[in-house]
Amino acid sequence: MVSTRNPLNLGASARAMANFGFSRLRVVAPYDVAFREARSAVGAAPLLGAAEEFATVADAVADCRLVVGTTSVGHRELLHPIRRLEYGARLMLRTLPTAPVALLFGSEKFGLSNDDLSHCHWLVRIPTVDRELSMNLGQAVALCLYELARDPRAPAARPARIKPASAAENEQITRLLIEALEQAGYINPRTAASSEEKIRRLVRRLDVTARDAPVLLGMLRQMLWKMRRS
Amino acid sequence: MVSTRNPLNLGASARAMANFGFSRLRVVAPYDVAFREARSAVGAAPLLGAAEEFATVADAVADCRLVVGTTSVGHRELLHPIRRLEYGARLMLRTLPTAPVALLFGSEKFGLSNDDLSHCHWLVRIPTVDRELSMNLGQAVALCLYELARDPRAPAARPARIKPASAAENEQITRLLIEALEQAGYINPRTAASSEEKIRRLVRRLDVTARDAPVLLGMLRQMLWKMRRS
Repeated sequence: MVSTRNPLNLGASARAMANFGFSRLRVVAPYDVAFREARSAVGAAPLLGAAEEFATVADAVADCRLVVGTTSVGHRELLHPIRRLEYGARLMLRTLPTAPVALLFGSEKFGLSNDDLSHCHWLVRIPTVDRELSMNLGQAVALCLYELARDPRAPAARPARIKPASAAENEQITRLLIEALEQAGYINPRTAASSEEKIRRLVRRLDVTARDAPVLLGMLRQMLWKMRRS
Repeated sequence: MVSTRNPLNLGASARAMANFGFSRLRVVAPYDVAFREARSAVGAAPLLGAAEEFATVADAVADCRLVVGTTSVGHRELLHPIRRLEYGARLMLRTLPTAPVALLFGSEKFGLSNDDLSHCHWLVRIPTVDRELSMNLGQAVALCLYELARDPRAPAARPARIKPASAAENEQITRLLIEALEQAGYINPRTAASSEEKIRRLVRRLDVTARDAPVLLGMLRQMLWKMRRS
């Protein structure tokens, strides 16, 4: 975090780091009051307390093998290769197992200076729609860390499904529902056979879960009982 | 946004919506002062100004075909199917072209209530490391919208790189090259500062490998020595 002014952004960044399992926060020339305020805030305390402070970007990234800057683009001509976050994150992840990687965020108002940027190998851009509207700093930090922590296989691998009701349970529900509808006078005796099939298909489409099946059966039984009594 | 208390979070959410191309913000029973304050804040004004206000979740989602809740889990037993954001976003994107989809965010302190959740078809979870530490609301909104706007084809594979020089080595090369160029009269003293940045960027673009760094340093030292002698 280079020249951060707002303590809320330092706090939000530290919290996002904790959320996604990152632990080494380095601050370069922070606005002093902001840094002290953020440190004393609740929640992110341990991470901010352990934050290392540096006077220059060069010092802060000295032990890193890859230095990546962040930019909202738009506000000036950039002289570095720029990669979309989705792709840049993959590159960072490839280096991360073998060497420290630095991810730089500039100040709220001006972003990273040309001098800051000259320490970077390349830049990462969050793919926002409107390039003129920069992102909130705390949100930008959260997005970058999320993309790094994101599981690329998760969207494909479907999570374990909720256990569906068995065919026998579905049929039990169907039978009770038909009984209840007959009792209520909803089913016309002349078209009873086709009604039964319609109701059976409807019940299958409901995709009842194993957990909900006994609840539905209980409801139907109770209504049947009430109708028979009246 | 259900029962949001902090105007900063409403503002940050509206800004993230603008960043990622979303336009319909609906607020349910917001803390009145927060909503008014957020509306009068600079930056996200147009989107917040057009925000629709509702008294209940039922009213707010009435025209939607898919209603998805967000949760930080951990704090209570949830009775809904929960999907990781990466996967849940794909499902939402599948519905989005044909029907409106609602994405619900609860209050900062309590999240969505059980009553709010009962309006949802399923829930989405941001895959944070520590399930006990909830996310900042504005950051959570930004992450979900980013995942929806994200290009899954962007992170295409690229061959593994050779071990690069460290930032300290790159800086050493930069300093020696500047010294050599000054010695050679290449750098105009009047534009020295901007030259320095240009040279630093050039060195970073070289993507010097760990193996080449000492070689380059040796070359530069030798040239410097020769120039100083003449």
